[in-house]
Amino acid sequence: MEEKETGRLEAFSDGVFAVAITLLVLSFQAPTTPSSLTDQALLISLSTQWPMIFAFVTSFATIGIMWINHHRLFNHIKRTDTGLQLLNLLLLLMIVFVPYPTALLAQQYAKHPDQRYAAVLFNGTYWIMAICFNLLWRYASYHNRLLGKNADQRAVAAISRQYLFGPASYTITLVLTWISVPASLILNFILALFFAVPGRPPRQVPQSDAQESREIAGDGL
Amino acid sequence: MEEKETGRLEAFSDGVFAVAITLLVLSFQAPTTPSSLTDQALLISLSTQWPMIFAFVTSFATIGIMWINHHRLFNHIKRTDTGLQLLNLLLLLMIVFVPYPTALLAQQYAKHPDQRYAAVLFNGTYWIMAICFNLLWRYASYHNRLLGKNADQRAVAAISRQYLFGPASYTITLVLTWISVPASLILNFILALFFAVPGRPPRQVPQSDAQESREIAGDGL
Amino acid sequence: MEEKETGRLEAFSDGVFAVAITLLVLSFQAPTTPSSLTDQALLISLSTQWPMIFAFVTSFATIGIMWINHHRLFNHIKRTDTGLQLLNLLLLLMIVFVPYPTALLAQQYAKHPDQRYAAVLFNGTYWIMAICFNLLWRYASYHNRLLGKNADQRAVAAISRQYLFGPASYTITLVLTWISVPASLILNFILALFFAVPGRPPRQVPQSDAQESREIAGDGL
Amino acid sequence: MEEKETGRLEAFSDGVFAVAITLLVLSFQAPTTPSSLTDQALLISLSTQWPMIFAFVTSFATIGIMWINHHRLFNHIKRTDTGLQLLNLLLLLMIVFVPYPTALLAQQYAKHPDQRYAAVLFNGTYWIMAICFNLLWRYASYHNRLLGKNADQRAVAAISRQYLFGPASYTITLVLTWISVPASLILNFILALFFAVPGRPPRQVPQSDAQESREIAGDGL
Repeated sequence: MEEKETGRLEAFSDGVFAVAITLLVLSFQAPTTPSSLTDQALLISLSTQWPMIFAFVTSFATIGIMWINHHRLFNHIKRTDTGLQLLNLLLLLMIVFVPYPTALLAQQYAKHPDQRYAAVLFNGTYWIMAICFNLLWRYASYHNRLLGKNADQRAVAAISRQYLFGPASYTITLVLTWISVPASLILNFILALFFAVPGRPPRQVPQSDAQESREIAGDGL
Repeated sequence: MEEKETGRLEAFSDGVFAVAITLLVLSFQAPTTPSSLTDQALLISLSTQWPMIFAFVTSFATIGIMWINHHRLFNHIKRTDTGLQLLNLLLLLMIVFVPYPTALLAQQYAKHPDQRYAAVLFNGTYWIMAICFNLLWRYASYHNRLLGKNADQRAVAAISRQYLFGPASYTITLVLTWISVPASLILNFILALFFAVPGRPPRQVPQSDAQESREIAGDGL
Repeated sequence: MEEKETGRLEAFSDGVFAVAITLLVLSFQAPTTPSSLTDQALLISLSTQWPMIFAFVTSFATIGIMWINHHRLFNHIKRTDTGLQLLNLLLLLMIVFVPYPTALLAQQYAKHPDQRYAAVLFNGTYWIMAICFNLLWRYASYHNRLLGKNADQRAVAAISRQYLFGPASYTITLVLTWISVPASLILNFILALFFAVPGRPPRQVPQSDAQESREIAGDGL
Repeated sequence: MEEKETGRLEAFSDGVFAVAITLLVLSFQAPTTPSSLTDQALLISLSTQWPMIFAFVTSFATIGIMWINHHRLFNHIKRTDTGLQLLNLLLLLMIVFVPYPTALLAQQYAKHPDQRYAAVLFNGTYWIMAICFNLLWRYASYHNRLLGKNADQRAVAAISRQYLFGPASYTITLVLTWISVPASLILNFILALFFAVPGRPPRQVPQSDAQESREIAGDGL
C-alpha cells in the first residue's frame, strides 16, 4: 500500500480549522458588556443581534464545509512538497481571516443596514478563498503530481469540474453586494450548501470509460 | 481488520471540543479590569463571581462529557459520508456556541438573579444539543448504516436506549427554568453526570441473545 | 503487540494543553490599549509588566511540564475507562483554569505588590493540580489496572515515588505565600523544573529485582 | 522499520502552531469598536490598518514557515528525550509569543511610525526564535543523537548549513531596526521566504559521497 505523506499537514490544518471555527463564537461577546442585563434589555440586545447570528451561522457553515472539502481533496492527495505546503498555508490564511469580516459585517449590518463595505469585505474573502482552493487542487492534481498512484480518476474529474464553479459564482456574489446586500448574503449561503455535497462525476459513457478518464486527466498520464 | 474512515473527522472534532472547552476560561476575564485590585477588592469581586464559577464548571463538565459521548459513539461508527459530516458539524456548532450562553448566564445571574432569559438560552442550548446527538446517532446506527461490521449490538442498543432520555429530560430542564432558575441549573448538572456513565445494555435474556440483537438492530439487518 | 486504547484521549488532551498554553499570551494584551504608544510610553509600560512576564513564563513552563508528565504517564497507561476519562477531565479543568490566576496575579502584583490573595489563588491552583495528577496516576496504576501488560515496573515505581512529593511540596508553596509572595513564586518555579526531569527509579538491588517489582506493584499482581 | 517516538510531541506542537497562527486574527479586533461604522468610517479605519495587515501577514507567514521547518526537522528526528522536549517547549514559547509583538508593532506603527521599540521587540523575537531552532536541531542532530538510524546524511547536512544563516541574518534585521524600521520589516519578510524553501545539500562530489557524509556527521559516527 502506498504510504501517505500528508499526515502532519492534515493534522495541522485540522487544528487551524478547529480553532478558526471555534473563535467565531467570540464575535458574540459584544452584548455581554452592558451593565443592565434584565430580561427586557437582554431580549432587545438579542433581537438586534440577528445579523450577527446570521453571519455566525454562515461562517460556521462555510468553514465547516471548507473543512469537508479539504478532507475530500486529501483523500486523493497522498504526497506533499514545499509548493503544496505554501498553497495550503495561503488557504489557511483565508480561513483564519474569516472571523474578522464576520464580526465586522455583523457589527455594521446591525447598526447601518444601508452600508455595504463590510459585506464587500465578507463576500470578497470568500471569493479569494474559492481561488485558493482551486490553486491548491490544480497544483496537486496537475498531471497527477501529488495524487495517489491509484487515484479514482472519475472522482478527481468530478472535483475539478465542481471547483470550476467556485470563483465564477463567488464573483457573482461579490458583484451582487452592490445591488443588494441581503441577496448577496443569501447567495453566499446557498453556495456553501452547494459545495457541501460532492460534485457529480462527468456524464458516464459506459463503453469509453478508460478513454474519458484519460481525457480528463490530461495528456500527462 | 476493518479500516476506520473516521480518523480525520475525529481529529477535527477533538480540536473543536478542545478549543471550546478551553475558551470557557475567557468568561472569567471580567473581574481583571477594575483598576483597584487590593485583596479586599479581589475578594469582593471573586465572591460575586460564584454564578460565573458554577456556569464555568457546568459547561466544562458538559462539554467534557459530550466529548466522552462523542468518543463512545465513534467507537462504533467506522464509516463516514456527507450526511454524517454535516450532522457532526451541526453538533459542533452547538458545542462551539456553549461558551456564549455560559458567559451570558454568568453575567446576568450575578447582577439580576430574578431574571430568567439567559437561563432559558442556556438550558435551550443543551436541549438542542441533546437533539443533535440523537440525530447523529440515529443517522449512523439506522440499519447499521455507518457502524462497523462487527459492532457490538448490545452496546449499540444500550446507547440508543440511554439517548432516548436526552431530549425528554432536557425538555423538563427547559420548562423548569420558568419555575426556578437554580433548580433547572442543578437538574442540568445532574443530567451531565447521568450521560457521563455509559448506559446499561437492555435486560439480558441468555437463551435468545442472537434473537434480541436482531430485534434491536431492526428489520433491515 | 498490545493495542493502545488511549489514542483519542491523548489527542483531545494534547489539544487542550496546546490551546491553554497558547491562550497565556492573551494575558499580555493589556498594555496595547493606551492611545499613546511612543517609545518612552512603551518602555515604561513594558517595564511595569515584568510580573506579567514572570507569571507568563512560569505558567508556560508549568503547563508545558504538565504536558511532559501527561505524556510520561500515558507511555504506561494503555487502557481507558469512564473513571480515567473523568479524572483526566478534572486534570484538564485545572490546566484550562491556569491562564486566569496567571492574568490575575500579573495584574495585581504589578499594581499592589503588597497584596497576596491573587498569589494564593495562583499557588492554590498548582496545589490542586498536583493532587489531580496523583489521583489520575494512582487510579490508573493501582494494581496495574489500566497499565500495559508489560509495563516497566521500575519506571512505574519511579513515577509513583516522584509524585508523592507533589502535593506535599505545593502545600509548602501555598503556606509560603503568607510569608513572602516572591519566595513562593520562586519555589513554584523550582518545583516545575523538578517535575520536568523524570524521577529516578528506587534504589536498585541487583539480586532481587523481580521481588522488588512485585513489592512495588502491590499484592494484586 | 524503526518506530517513531515523536508522535505525541508532533501532535502537541501542531496544536500550538495551529492555535498561535489562528490567534493572530485577534489583533484585527481593534477597529470594530467605534460606534459609527458607516462605509466612510470603515474605509478610513481600514486604511489606517495597513501596518496591522502587514504585521499579520508577516507573522502568519513566519509561523507557517516555522511549522514547515518543524515538520522538516521531525522528518529526521525519530527519538525523543527530556532535553528535546524542553528545547521544543522553548521554541513553542517563542511561537506563542509572536502574536503579542505583532499586535504591539501594528498599533505603534499605525500611530507613531517614527518610533522603533515595538519593531525592536518584533525583530528581537524572531532573532531568539532563530536561535531556538538552531538549539533544537543541533541537540537532536549532534552525533545523530535522536535521528533515525537511516537518516539521509545529505539532507541533514543541508539543514545544518541553512540554519547557520538564521541567527546571523536575524542579527542584521535587528541592527537594521535602528537605521530603518520599514527596511528591517522587509528583510524579515524576505528571510521568512528563504527558510520556506529547503536548503540545498552541500556541493556533491560524486566519487566521495560516503566520505563527505562522514565528514558532515562528525567524528562520532
